[in-house]
Amino acid sequence: MPDLDPALRQHLLGMTTATATSMLNQRGYQNQFMNGARPLQRGARACGRAVTVRFGPGRPDLTFSQEERSREPLWSTIESVEAGDFLVLDCGGDTRAGTVGDILAARIKHRGGVGLVVDGALRDAAQIRDLVGLACWSAGVHGSGYPPYLACLDSGQAVRCFGVTVRPGDVILADEDGLVAIPLALAEEIAEAGAEQERKETFIRTLIQQGVPTSEAYPPNAATLERYEAWKRQQPQDASPG
Amino acid sequence: MPDLDPALRQHLLGMTTATATSMLNQRGYQNQFMNGARPLQRGARACGRAVTVRFGPGRPDLTFSQEERSREPLWSTIESVEAGDFLVLDCGGDTRAGTVGDILAARIKHRGGVGLVVDGALRDAAQIRDLVGLACWSAGVHGSGYPPYLACLDSGQAVRCFGVTVRPGDVILADEDGLVAIPLALAEEIAEAGAEQERKETFIRTLIQQGVPTSEAYPPNAATLERYEAWKRQQPQDASPG
Amino acid sequence: MPDLDPALRQHLLGMTTATATSMLNQRGYQNQFMNGARPLQRGARACGRAVTVRFGPGRPDLTFSQEERSREPLWSTIESVEAGDFLVLDCGGDTRAGTVGDILAARIKHRGGVGLVVDGALRDAAQIRDLVGLACWSAGVHGSGYPPYLACLDSGQAVRCFGVTVRPGDVILADEDGLVAIPLALAEEIAEAGAEQERKETFIRTLIQQGVPTSEAYPPNAATLERYEAWKRQQPQDASPG
Amino acid sequence: MPDLDPALRQHLLGMTTATATSMLNQRGYQNQFMNGARPLQRGARACGRAVTVRFGPGRPDLTFSQEERSREPLWSTIESVEAGDFLVLDCGGDTRAGTVGDILAARIKHRGGVGLVVDGALRDAAQIRDLVGLACWSAGVHGSGYPPYLACLDSGQAVRCFGVTVRPGDVILADEDGLVAIPLALAEEIAEAGAEQERKETFIRTLIQQGVPTSEAYPPNAATLERYEAWKRQQPQDASPG
Amino acid sequence: MPDLDPALRQHLLGMTTATATSMLNQRGYQNQFMNGARPLQRGARACGRAVTVRFGPGRPDLTFSQEERSREPLWSTIESVEAGDFLVLDCGGDTRAGTVGDILAARIKHRGGVGLVVDGALRDAAQIRDLVGLACWSAGVHGSGYPPYLACLDSGQAVRCFGVTVRPGDVILADEDGLVAIPLALAEEIAEAGAEQERKETFIRTLIQQGVPTSEAYPPNAATLERYEAWKRQQPQDASPG
Amino acid sequence: MPDLDPALRQHLLGMTTATATSMLNQRGYQNQFMNGARPLQRGARACGRAVTVRFGPGRPDLTFSQEERSREPLWSTIESVEAGDFLVLDCGGDTRAGTVGDILAARIKHRGGVGLVVDGALRDAAQIRDLVGLACWSAGVHGSGYPPYLACLDSGQAVRCFGVTVRPGDVILADEDGLVAIPLALAEEIAEAGAEQERKETFIRTLIQQGVPTSEAYPPNAATLERYEAWKRQQPQDASPG
Repeated sequence: MPDLDPALRQHLLGMTTATATSMLNQRGYQNQFMNGARPLQRGARACGRAVTVRFGPGRPDLTFSQEERSREPLWSTIESVEAGDFLVLDCGGDTRAGTVGDILAARIKHRGGVGLVVDGALRDAAQIRDLVGLACWSAGVHGSGYPPYLACLDSGQAVRCFGVTVRPGDVILADEDGLVAIPLALAEEIAEAGAEQERKETFIRTLIQQGVPTSEAYPPNAATLERYEAWKRQQPQDASPG
Repeated sequence: MPDLDPALRQHLLGMTTATATSMLNQRGYQNQFMNGARPLQRGARACGRAVTVRFGPGRPDLTFSQEERSREPLWSTIESVEAGDFLVLDCGGDTRAGTVGDILAARIKHRGGVGLVVDGALRDAAQIRDLVGLACWSAGVHGSGYPPYLACLDSGQAVRCFGVTVRPGDVILADEDGLVAIPLALAEEIAEAGAEQERKETFIRTLIQQGVPTSEAYPPNAATLERYEAWKRQQPQDASPG
Repeated sequence: MPDLDPALRQHLLGMTTATATSMLNQRGYQNQFMNGARPLQRGARACGRAVTVRFGPGRPDLTFSQEERSREPLWSTIESVEAGDFLVLDCGGDTRAGTVGDILAARIKHRGGVGLVVDGALRDAAQIRDLVGLACWSAGVHGSGYPPYLACLDSGQAVRCFGVTVRPGDVILADEDGLVAIPLALAEEIAEAGAEQERKETFIRTLIQQGVPTSEAYPPNAATLERYEAWKRQQPQDASPG
Repeated sequence: MPDLDPALRQHLLGMTTATATSMLNQRGYQNQFMNGARPLQRGARACGRAVTVRFGPGRPDLTFSQEERSREPLWSTIESVEAGDFLVLDCGGDTRAGTVGDILAARIKHRGGVGLVVDGALRDAAQIRDLVGLACWSAGVHGSGYPPYLACLDSGQAVRCFGVTVRPGDVILADEDGLVAIPLALAEEIAEAGAEQERKETFIRTLIQQGVPTSEAYPPNAATLERYEAWKRQQPQDASPG
Repeated sequence: MPDLDPALRQHLLGMTTATATSMLNQRGYQNQFMNGARPLQRGARACGRAVTVRFGPGRPDLTFSQEERSREPLWSTIESVEAGDFLVLDCGGDTRAGTVGDILAARIKHRGGVGLVVDGALRDAAQIRDLVGLACWSAGVHGSGYPPYLACLDSGQAVRCFGVTVRPGDVILADEDGLVAIPLALAEEIAEAGAEQERKETFIRTLIQQGVPTSEAYPPNAATLERYEAWKRQQPQDASPG
Repeated sequence: MPDLDPALRQHLLGMTTATATSMLNQRGYQNQFMNGARPLQRGARACGRAVTVRFGPGRPDLTFSQEERSREPLWSTIESVEAGDFLVLDCGGDTRAGTVGDILAARIKHRGGVGLVVDGALRDAAQIRDLVGLACWSAGVHGSGYPPYLACLDSGQAVRCFGVTVRPGDVILADEDGLVAIPLALAEEIAEAGAEQERKETFIRTLIQQGVPTSEAYPPNAATLERYEAWKRQQPQDASPG
C-alpha cells in the first residue's frame, strides 16, 4: 500500500469534509461522504491513510480463542499500523457489540494511528474520548466485546462503511460533519481545488456578511468572480485557506 | 402571508415547547411536535413564522444549473425572508445530501431569519453552529450539496417535517427538546394559556421540592389549586413565567 | 422485592458498564447491555435497583382521567420509590409522546431515586438535565404528554428496555456508554470479578503506554500475567480500581 | 376471562376488519388495527377471544430446560386454550427467532384455537399453512427456536402487538387486510353498527357501479340516504350483510 | 396537463419496467424506479398518465367534515379522472391509516383510471384485488380511514412516491417488479429504444439458452451484435417485442 | 473449494430449514438462518454449495465498462459456476438497484447453478420466476441495473447475507421459510441428526393429532421416547423422513 505524503495530509487537514466532498462530486464521485457517523470527541478532526478491517455476524468456526487472538485480523492490523494511518472498520452497521475498546485504541495511537471509524460500536467511549490524538467516529457504543455477536473476517480489502465503499489506501478526511474517502490518485488534485474553493468561499462569506444578495454572491456571478480574482491577487502568496 | 406580531413572538419565546404542545393537545391538536429533530447549538431557542420549502429525490428535469440558481425555490425564498421568519425545509427525511450550508445560513440570518429546521441534512455544521442568532435543527449533516440526490420542488406550500404538517404562516416555537408548529389562529390563546400553565407548574415544582406527594400536587387536587390561586394573587401583577 | 446492599451499590458504581458487561458475558449472560440509550447529562453515572413500569399504545379503556391519575401505575410506582431505586420504563421504543417530565422526575429524585431509563421519550429534557442527582437515559425527547398515544399498562413486571429483558430487582449500572442489567444473584460476584478485571486493565494500560505490543499485553500472555500478579502484590491492600 | 358468545363471534366473522375498525374509530378507539401483520394463508379469516403471551430478549435465568418446558407460559397457555380462542404473541417485533412451529400450532388447533398472531416470527411456515382451521399472521418466519434469543415472560397480561395494545378477552377479528382488537364491552355494538355500515356500503357500491358521482353517493348525501332507507325496507328481513 | 397518446401508452405497456428504467438510466435519469411498492394483484400491469395527490400528518384545521368531503383534493381529483389516468398518492411512507378503499377505487375505475400507487396504505385490499381493470400498488394495508392520522394536502403538484419525484403528466409504467415514472417528453424515445432493447434481449436470451457464454452474449460483443442485426432483418417487419 | 457430495446434497434437500437450523443451534451455531429473505417462487426449495460475490456502494474507480464486463467478479463467478452451486450475493441490504436479471439468471441455471440469494434486489422478477430449476431469494426487486449505485467488489470471500456470515463452500439449504448456511464440515452430521429429528417429529405430529397433550408429546417425555423407539423399529429400514 503506497504511503500518504505528509505534506499532502497536512494540506488536506486544512479543509472541511464538505469542501472535499464537493470537489469529489465535481469529478464524478457522488458517494464518498460517510452518512451518519458520529464523532466521539468535540471538534474532532483527522486525516490519514485508510487501513481496513471487516467484521460479520459471528460463527464458532470464525472465532479466535484468547490464545490465538494475536492472529485475528484486527489484532495483526493494529500491530502493523504506521504513522498517519486511519482505521476503517466495517461491521455492516451492527451495533449489538463493541469492537475496539480503550486498550486497543491506545495501542493504535501509540503506533501513530490518527483516526478510527467504525460502522458499528466502540467500547469504553468515555476513556477513548480522553485519548488525545486519536479521533474516533462510530455508529454507537456497546459494553460487550464482539464475540459471539461479531467475527473478524479479514483486513486489507475494500469495505463498506456508513454507505461508502472505502479502499485500502484511500485518504480519509474527517471532521465534526463526518468523513470522506478520497481516492489516493485524486488526493493532490482535491487538495488544490479545495484550497481554491475555500479561498473563494471565504471571499463570498465576507460579501454575504456585507449584505450582498445570493444572486450576485452565491454562486458568484461574473462581476463577483472578477472582484474575487482581484482580491485574491492582493492576498499574501502563501496564504492557506481557513 | 400575515405577519407574526413581535410581542406575541416574544411572549411565546418565554415558553417551553413542552408547554406549548400540551396547550395544543388540549385543543385537539395531537400531532404538532416535530419528533426527532436535533439542535445544532446547545441551548438553542427560537420562535418565528414558518416559511416552507420542499425537496424531493433529484431528477434532471428539476435540476437548476449554476446560472439559474437564483430562480430555484430555495434561493428565491431565502431572498424574500423577513425579520422573524423560520425556514422549514421538507426533505422527506432524506439525509443523503446536505441542503443549506454556512453561506446560505449566513444570508438567512442577515435578512433577519431566526430559525431553520431541515427534515434532512445541513452542510458545514461546525460553521453554522458558530453563526450566532440563527438557531438550527436537522436530522443529520452531510458533506455533499443536494444535486443530484435532491431537487428543490417548490415553496410556500404545506410541508411535512419530522412527522408534522407545517403550513406557511404557522408559528414555530423551538428549543432543545424540539419544535412545535402552532397554527397562527391559536397562537395568542396558546401564549396566554401556556403562561398560566407554566406559572402553575412553577408553583407545583416548589411543592414537589418540599416533599408534597403527587396525589396532592400533580395533577393538583382541589386544595392545592386553591393554594395556587392564593399564591398567584400574591405574585407581582406583570410577572411573566420563567 | 429484596433490597440492594448500599455497599454493593457503591462497589459497582466504581466500575464501567463495559467491565460489568464483560463479566456477565463470561457467565453466559450475552444480552444484558441496553443498546442505544442516550444519556441526558454529560458524565452521567448511576447504580440502583430496577423498578419497572410498562407502557403500550393508548386506548380509551386504559386511559386514566386527571382525577384518577394517582392510581395509574406510573404514579403509584413513583410514590413507592425507595432510596437507591432506578426506574426502568418500557415504551416499546415508541417516541411519539413523552412520559416522565421534570415534575415527576423531581418527585423521583426527592424520594431517593438515582436513575431513570426510558425506552421512549422524556419531556422537559432541559429542566431534567439540571436536576442534580437523578441521571437519565432515553431514546428521545417529546413535547406531548403520553395520552392518547401511550397508556400505562402495569408495573413490577419483567420489561423490555433497549433490547434487554429487565426484571424488577435487577441491579442497573449506567454510565455514558449505556446501561447494563445485572441479575441481583450475580451482583456480588460481578462486583468482585469486575474489580479484579479493572485492576488488570489498569496494569495493561500502563504497558500499552510503554509500547508493549498486544501480543504480550492484551490479552496478557503468561509472562505478563506473572508480572501483573507481582505488581498487584505491591499495591496497597485496599486499593479500589479506578 | 369471560366467554365470547359464539353467535356474536359468527356475526363478527361476516364483517371486514376495515368496517370493524371504522366502527371503533367512530367510538374514539383510533388505534385498534394491527399494522403490518402478514397472513400466512391466502383468504385467511378468523374471529376469536384474545389469549396473550409475552416474550422478551432471552436471558439464562428466564430460560426453561426441556424438562420444565410444560411450565413455560407459552406451553401452559396452549394447554388451556378453549374453543374460539385467538393466540396473541408479543415479541416486541423481534424476528431473530421463531416462536410457534407446526407441532404447537397443531396442538392449538386441536384444542379449538381459531387464530394466532405473532409480532415476531413463526417456524415451519409451509407446514402451518397447510393446517386447515388455524389462521395465522406474523411479522416473519425464522428457522431457529426461540432460546437463547427470546424468553417467554408471562401470559394473561395486556400486550403490544403490531402497534396495538391487546387485552386478554378482547375480540380479535382478522382477515387478509390485518387484525383488529375489539374491546369485549363494545363487540355487540360494533357487530350491529358494522352490519348496518356494510349494508349501506353494498348499496353505495351499486350506485358507484352505475356511475353515480361521489358527491351524491360517498359519503351519501341526504337524497341518497333516503333512497337507501327505501331500498333497505325492500330487503328480506333477516338478510345478513356480505 | 397534456394527454397521453393512447398508441404510445399501448406501446409502453408491452415493455417491462426494468427495460424502461434502463432506457432512462442511459439518458441520465438514475432515480425513476419506485423502490418497494407491492402490487395487490398477481400479474399486475398498467400504464397511464400520473395524476398526483399529497397527504400529510393530520391536523384539525386541514380535516374535512363529511359534508365538505367532495371539496377534499382526493375527492375532486377522483371526480376529474380521465381515461388512462394513473393515480399517484404521496403519504410520506405513512401506513398508519388507509387512504383509498374499494368504493373510491371503483369510482376511479368507472371514470377510466387504469392504475393507483400509494406510498402508504390502502383499505379493503381483498375487495380492491377483485376490481378487474384497476391495478394497484401500495406500501401496506390498513383498516382505518385516514383522519385523524393523515390529512389530504393538495393535488396536481410534484410528489414523492417510493423514493421517486413524480410530476403530474409523467407516464407511469407498472408491472409486478414495481413502477417507473417516465417524463412525458422522453416517453416516445423510451418506447422506441426500449422496444429495440427488448428485441435484442430476446435474441440474447436464445443464445444463453443455447449455452453461449456471457463474454460473447451479454453484453453482446461485436460478432454477436452482427448476428443480431442479421437476425433482426429476418424478423417480420411489424414484430413487437415480447 | 471442495465439492459437495451429490448424495449429501440430496439427503439435505429432504429436510426443512427449520430442522437444519435446530441441529446447528444444538452444536453452538446460533446464527446461521438468513432472516427476512423472500422467495421469488412459491414452493421454492434448493440445496447447494455457496459461491459468494460482494457488492458495495458504487464509485467510478470500481465501475467496469461494457467492454470489461466479463472481468467483473460477478461475471467471472457466473462463468465458473459448477453443477450444484448456490450463488450468495452480499449487497449490504441495499435495494436501490437490481443485481442479477433474467439473462444472468438463465446463464447460472445453464451452468448448473441451483439457487441464488441476494441481500439486495433482483431485476426482471417475473421472468426469473418462470426459470424452472433456479430457485431465488432476495430482499426486493428493482428495475435499474447496479451501476452507479453499486459496484461489484470481489468474489470468493466470506460475505454477510441477511444477517449471516456465509463462507464459500458452506452448504446452503433453502425453502419457503428462508435459508440456512451449514458449514461443510458439519453437513454430514446435520443431515443425519436432522433426519432422525424429522422422524421423531413425524411421530410426535401423529400423537398431537390424536390429542396427546404437549406435556407428554412435545418435548417428548421418557414414556413417549420409548414409544417412539418402538415405533421406529417397526418402520421400513430405509425410510427417509418427510
